[in-house]
Amino acid sequence: MSGEAFVTLATTDSYCMGAIVVARSLQRHGTTRSTVVMVTPNLSQQSRLALEDVFDEVITVDVMDSDDHFRLSLLGRPDLGITFTKIHCWTLTQYSKCVFLDADTLVLCNVDELFERDELSAAPDPGWPDCFNSGVFVFRPSLRTHSGLLEHALQHGSFDGGDQGLLNSFFSSWPAEDISKHLPFVYNLSGSSFYSYLPAFRQFGHNAKVVHFIGAVKPWSSIRDESSSHSMEQFVSLWWKEYLGYTTSSGAGKQQECSLTDNTPVEEEGPGCGAEEAEEAEGGACTSNVDTDPVCKASIPDQPHIYIGQNVQERGGEGNAPLRDTLTGPSSLPVHSPPPAESLRPPTEPETVSWDTNTPYLVSQLALVVKVRAPWM
Amino acid sequence: MSGEAFVTLATTDSYCMGAIVVARSLQRHGTTRSTVVMVTPNLSQQSRLALEDVFDEVITVDVMDSDDHFRLSLLGRPDLGITFTKIHCWTLTQYSKCVFLDADTLVLCNVDELFERDELSAAPDPGWPDCFNSGVFVFRPSLRTHSGLLEHALQHGSFDGGDQGLLNSFFSSWPAEDISKHLPFVYNLSGSSFYSYLPAFRQFGHNAKVVHFIGAVKPWSSIRDESSSHSMEQFVSLWWKEYLGYTTSSGAGKQQECSLTDNTPVEEEGPGCGAEEAEEAEGGACTSNVDTDPVCKASIPDQPHIYIGQNVQERGGEGNAPLRDTLTGPSSLPVHSPPPAESLRPPTEPETVSWDTNTPYLVSQLALVVKVRAPWM
Repeated sequence: MSGEAFVTLATTDSYCMGAIVVARSLQRHGTTRSTVVMVTPNLSQQSRLALEDVFDEVITVDVMDSDDHFRLSLLGRPDLGITFTKIHCWTLTQYSKCVFLDADTLVLCNVDELFERDELSAAPDPGWPDCFNSGVFVFRPSLRTHSGLLEHALQHGSFDGGDQGLLNSFFSSWPAEDISKHLPFVYNLSGSSFYSYLPAFRQFGHNAKVVHFIGAVKPWSSIRDESSSHSMEQFVSLWWKEYLGYTTSSGAGKQQECSLTDNTPVEEEGPGCGAEEAEEAEGGACTSNVDTDPVCKASIPDQPHIYIGQNVQERGGEGNAPLRDTLTGPSSLPVHSPPPAESLRPPTEPETVSWDTNTPYLVSQLALVVKVRAPWM
Repeated sequence: MSGEAFVTLATTDSYCMGAIVVARSLQRHGTTRSTVVMVTPNLSQQSRLALEDVFDEVITVDVMDSDDHFRLSLLGRPDLGITFTKIHCWTLTQYSKCVFLDADTLVLCNVDELFERDELSAAPDPGWPDCFNSGVFVFRPSLRTHSGLLEHALQHGSFDGGDQGLLNSFFSSWPAEDISKHLPFVYNLSGSSFYSYLPAFRQFGHNAKVVHFIGAVKPWSSIRDESSSHSMEQFVSLWWKEYLGYTTSSGAGKQQECSLTDNTPVEEEGPGCGAEEAEEAEGGACTSNVDTDPVCKASIPDQPHIYIGQNVQERGGEGNAPLRDTLTGPSSLPVHSPPPAESLRPPTEPETVSWDTNTPYLVSQLALVVKVRAPWM
């Protein structure tokens, strides 16, 4: 067990907020594996201290950037070149196996069963489902693989300018070779699934294990994502509960109890995994127990006490700022303490919603607010 | 060979147009398998005759409808209940193995290699990639399976109200059991892929084998799809060339040469399969040869001579009309002859575009016209 770890990456102070939520949500769901964050040297000392408080290991790595402005422009995400830095995770050879989680993910269940999978296991990307999404993947640290990836990047670049294009062309057998390396979609559930095939989301979404906040607008952005669905707002709400539970409690650290945990019966709860439906939705089993796992007991408040400080914003955000700006810009984020009350404002005001697969309430609400943009036939 | 067939379904006169294109595109790419269309009794005699001219077999089947208005409303597609009729394809026991193609697909290559796959093989649905899209699938006709599907439909319904939900819950092992049953995405390429992950479309899209015109707006609709990308318009243009090549030529029938076929070098051509890149994109091999397969030689005209007659419209279309209306409405479509000139108007005016993976021209054009709505991280 000690030879295995969850790994994430923080390249800006904002992404540190995401990394903290990744670690906290893993620990609150009782992971037995280590938690590791790779950081780039530009992070503020305050952010680094906050990460050291919650992660088992904080490792500084060099910045790697694809500098592929043309392909990145196709994605509308000039910031993603820096995701090449992620490749350094293969150098963590003190661990025999790792699971990488992007810093913009939120873990809803114990997902330690991911370590039963082998390299390179990942879930399909909805944009092109013969590619895997590189936000969640199982890998085996190896300096040889690391060198191979660097060589491949130098020779071929990345077809999308980011790490996902590079990893998909390097691990090119993924779509057709081994079904066990296809993680169920619920391990990397992206926002697009909420509106593109709503009946499937209704059928399988309650089994979500890891939510991925793809796109330029992140939970820590103060910019509201107008295209976001009601369900996505619920997950953003959960993200903020996880984050503020950490920053506002005394005794913050690995042993801290998160305020999200309570004893409310699961029937009245928000989105989370349902162990009894895991088998139906996918091949991998959900090992969490809804009766004992606080994840599955997390409640969604009537009016969430979720605020974003203006000082958290890096104007332009990760999505718009020139790449180097995000590395060299001011590091003013007070990760340890809550932002001052006068600078706070709520990003969303979701209604109270019960998550019960036996009633169509949530779905009927979704049907009202969601524009089905890509019906399947 | 004679024991295998491509099968499609036409439940309205409009869908007959699509079915004709399916058969013609299969035959023009030299399929050695039979072509079969299932039709419902409401079709006009004219449409039926047109189908008999191009298909090897026209089989009348009963209408089956899920009548699941609630779930269909979630999809925004009240018309899709009738897709339950598709289930009758399992009764075609005169064939040992079949490939089903929805009538709103366009075949770009010889895809006979699909018969090397087993039941139930299908490509992932981008909306929820742990579900397969039921627009293209390999199956083995069997009365036992047919009965099982009917029983399953009666007991459980369909989670989306259409055949896709039913088939995915019946063949529930698809996402996790056998990678050979995962058809590469290029065998069922839907429009959403053009804008959701553009770099992947640029990387793999030239290997497209079957395009699926998902959504309420079909190529035969006179309603222009405002969300359509430049590339999708190209495929609509190809669809119309295929359709009008049939309806406007003398000697229409199985042996007719389609006007789409020419001798223009492949380097200057529109989207189609590239045999040399098939292996890179997926597990199944593309058996077509770019030098001999007219599909890969199809050119896109500067100003396509593509028109849609007003009389082709069934007001409200398949996408909006009440389900029973589409079955009992007027059958006025003159499938055999072109619509009168005075009632024609061009649906799109795509520019001339060369398809060359070595130049970024197409992609740069796409970058201008496509709004990237779902970047992958």
